[in-house]
Amino acid sequence: MAKIEVPHTAYFDRYCQTLGSGGSLLASVDADGRPNAMTIGWALLGVVWRRPICAVFVRPSRYTYGCIETTGDFTVNVPPPELAEQVLFCGTESGRDRDKFAECDLTPTPGRKVRSPGIEECWITHECVVVQKTDVVPEHFAPEIIDMLYAGGDFHRVYFGQIVASYADVEALKQA
Amino acid sequence: MAKIEVPHTAYFDRYCQTLGSGGSLLASVDADGRPNAMTIGWALLGVVWRRPICAVFVRPSRYTYGCIETTGDFTVNVPPPELAEQVLFCGTESGRDRDKFAECDLTPTPGRKVRSPGIEECWITHECVVVQKTDVVPEHFAPEIIDMLYAGGDFHRVYFGQIVASYADVEALKQA
Repeated sequence: MAKIEVPHTAYFDRYCQTLGSGGSLLASVDADGRPNAMTIGWALLGVVWRRPICAVFVRPSRYTYGCIETTGDFTVNVPPPELAEQVLFCGTESGRDRDKFAECDLTPTPGRKVRSPGIEECWITHECVVVQKTDVVPEHFAPEIIDMLYAGGDFHRVYFGQIVASYADVEALKQA
Repeated sequence: MAKIEVPHTAYFDRYCQTLGSGGSLLASVDADGRPNAMTIGWALLGVVWRRPICAVFVRPSRYTYGCIETTGDFTVNVPPPELAEQVLFCGTESGRDRDKFAECDLTPTPGRKVRSPGIEECWITHECVVVQKTDVVPEHFAPEIIDMLYAGGDFHRVYFGQIVASYADVEALKQA
């Protein structure tokens, strides 16, 4: 089913629900144009700097970090439940060693306005251009967050992406 | 009308729409417990660190900055259109010089889980406890954003608040 443009606020319940149960797919390309997908359980959506913004959190150790640093763009893709296995794979393997798109039978679709691809099999895609990036501050975390999520350091960089296109398989979402 | 607890994802369309047209009200208290409200057109909502998160952006020059630094909490309140004049006032005056709650006839309601108050006349309140704060990085902005929004410097601090309570006047929202 062809995807149609939707407001960036559309399907926000689904967006958050997916983050909390398995995750969404953050897609990017490396310097050679090779696409990669990383599973994310964290993201924010809203309005900042008078622009629609999606914020994602990437550890410097991740392959995706270098990709976004190189291109300055990314896409966030909300998968249907049937992709649970692929989403798990993309969350445990690294794009340094594997071609996750090929191994998961995921189809990269050309970005409409960015270099990073969308993912054909996903329900919703937000294309984002980085307009600000900053790092979380270790001393500003509650100790329980450090213990639970940063035992190994590797503190996240926050990428604030201006959403330049949002599109969805509205028919599939109606039946979901 | 009494407000009832709602998921933090509820009314997200309304939340973004209000940010883009007049703004929402960021409420906090100062060291003396005096409530203050600041108009915001920027905010993000989602899931980070396995928690529901609302991110707000506050310039160091603002009275609210000191309040949040002191208490570590805040509330975001979505006003009905009838409050347009009060929202404008709260966006142009400073809590250093004025009692904005009193002058606007806004009623602070005791926070259910935080020291910052809710606002009786608003439709939706998210109570937030700061779990991370970091500053935007001037060198990482596109020049057009600097020109448009940071000609005077005063770069924002980003407060990531864990949403500990969300409640809404669902009856009023039904009729809106």
